Amino acid sequence: MRRGLFVTFEGSEGCGKSTQIRHLASWLQARGADVVTVREPGGTAAGDEIRHLLQHAPQGHGLVPEAELLLFAASRAQLVREVVLPALDAGRAVLCDRFHDSTTVYQGVARRLPPDQVAAINSFAVGGCLPDLTILLDMDAREAFARLRQRGTTADRMESEPAAFYEAVREGYLRVAAAEPDRLLVLDAGRAEDDLARAIQSALTERFHGFFSR
Amino acid sequence: MRRGLFVTFEGSEGCGKSTQIRHLASWLQARGADVVTVREPGGTAAGDEIRHLLQHAPQGHGLVPEAELLLFAASRAQLVREVVLPALDAGRAVLCDRFHDSTTVYQGVARRLPPDQVAAINSFAVGGCLPDLTILLDMDAREAFARLRQRGTTADRMESEPAAFYEAVREGYLRVAAAEPDRLLVLDAGRAEDDLARAIQSALTERFHGFFSR
Repeated sequence: MRRGLFVTFEGSEGCGKSTQIRHLASWLQARGADVVTVREPGGTAAGDEIRHLLQHAPQGHGLVPEAELLLFAASRAQLVREVVLPALDAGRAVLCDRFHDSTTVYQGVARRLPPDQVAAINSFAVGGCLPDLTILLDMDAREAFARLRQRGTTADRMESEPAAFYEAVREGYLRVAAAEPDRLLVLDAGRAEDDLARAIQSALTERFHGFFSR
Repeated sequence: MRRGLFVTFEGSEGCGKSTQIRHLASWLQARGADVVTVREPGGTAAGDEIRHLLQHAPQGHGLVPEAELLLFAASRAQLVREVVLPALDAGRAVLCDRFHDSTTVYQGVARRLPPDQVAAINSFAVGGCLPDLTILLDMDAREAFARLRQRGTTADRMESEPAAFYEAVREGYLRVAAAEPDRLLVLDAGRAEDDLARAIQSALTERFHGFFSR
């Protein structure tokens, strides 16, 4: 039986996932939880090599969307079995920066790969290891785009897409949330940082009473 | 419409695929064909990086079978779209050392991953780009094992498996051949090199008259 707690964070680049993961990790640790924080793609030795390949595909030999999806899935398959499942079995709290919903949205919706095939590959990669809760930090596509430009980060391939791509990503995420309202908590990423952190803490306290009362 | 000719070579390590590919390439070139020879995993810049990752997974952090399968599929998805399809569209003959049957057999049968999921991922990776003909060089598992030991090649992860693995691989290949007798030509890998080469040439001449009479 799984004794830990698995929370994933989703949303456009620039929506504040990393900041909220830091807040939640501190808050959980203050309550005695053993916290493991990972990011996708990566989180394992093999996954980090896959991340490098995804972000620095050789010039003039861009990855086709199908290969991109399969590389994300490979990194995830390794992460689940090498890190996430052992941590959950040991009763830890696992916080993951992106997980399978990113593939549904980025590759399925935004890159327009067939949704049923994307779902089948997602399912194979995670092998039943689904999040207990997914925090979706929802943000207007133009706002996300502006935040990224402000950051000046253009190295990441994902961060050099046109605005229409971010529109599709946002809509894709909201569709996933509508389909699985119990698993996804949608929060307005424009809210104040502390306010968002408290909303996430409240959701965890309410939903996973058993995890905190051990 | 596809104008080229797509031939894949399958069989245990040590069965003589590379030798027969060289013979067939020379023979096709002598008949005026423009030949492209590729191997899997690899054949593209991204694919070569994936090949390296598959063969040199970091010590102590071995790839899980699911990640292994997805990496092979990623390499294949890139190879199909970057190299194979453009070559076939241009009327070339593409000879590939391993293709999707290797995944069916090595990951599906020998690693015992669910066959329906392996088939779904294979199908996504190749996107309908299936071989016109697949040459299966069939060899007794013990013979394959002995040939490998003789070669002294142990660097490749695939080449350091127990004998039972090779038994499963052989049986898996023969099952694929029984299911698709029109696509697969099964030849005894123990036959003399020249004799095998002639058998492959005859099969091509008979089956793809149109390709040679242009």
